[in-house]
Amino acid sequence: MENVIRFPARRAAEPEPLWREAVGAELLDERRDRDQRLVDVAARAGVSPQYLSELERGRKDPSSEVLAAVTGALGISMADLTVRVGRRLRRGAAGGLSGPVCLAA
Amino acid sequence: MENVIRFPARRAAEPEPLWREAVGAELLDERRDRDQRLVDVAARAGVSPQYLSELERGRKDPSSEVLAAVTGALGISMADLTVRVGRRLRRGAAGGLSGPVCLAA
Repeated sequence: MENVIRFPARRAAEPEPLWREAVGAELLDERRDRDQRLVDVAARAGVSPQYLSELERGRKDPSSEVLAAVTGALGISMADLTVRVGRRLRRGAAGGLSGPVCLAA
Repeated sequence: MENVIRFPARRAAEPEPLWREAVGAELLDERRDRDQRLVDVAARAGVSPQYLSELERGRKDPSSEVLAAVTGALGISMADLTVRVGRRLRRGAAGGLSGPVCLAA
């Protein structure tokens, strides 16, 4: 059993991901899906690339104005972003663990 | 035509409500649906009643930790709150304008 890779599902006892972690992961996914560069989205949103990177990694709580600016720069609405973040939180996934998971032995 | 009450739908040119406005309105609705007092929810969440009131009115951007504490105090998950806020934003309603609207002449 030494070679079994631990199943990466969230256990019931683990706390929910924080809002900023889920919204950051969703912003990163959205930007990558659109094949956009961090520096370009940051410039359009009027924030620094460093700050956008911190948002995408769930390190900062964005203000509502920054969220509106970043979603605008990505070409999505706050409504769509929020619904997607809600679905991500329901899956219990803050990070990229949204597809099928692998169990190797 | 002087007695026609203006139809309160959001016009296409109006900006989306901000995240804090939609989340505040949803927190207020959730608390009222549960017939809970502001002071009790605030005490359970570990915030002052004044601060919770400001959140509910969409005046403050809550940190992710405060959001988690307030949803916990209301007995709902961040996932459920976020999905409901997303639906509220899709309706274009930051405030209480979520039911049928009346047109009087």
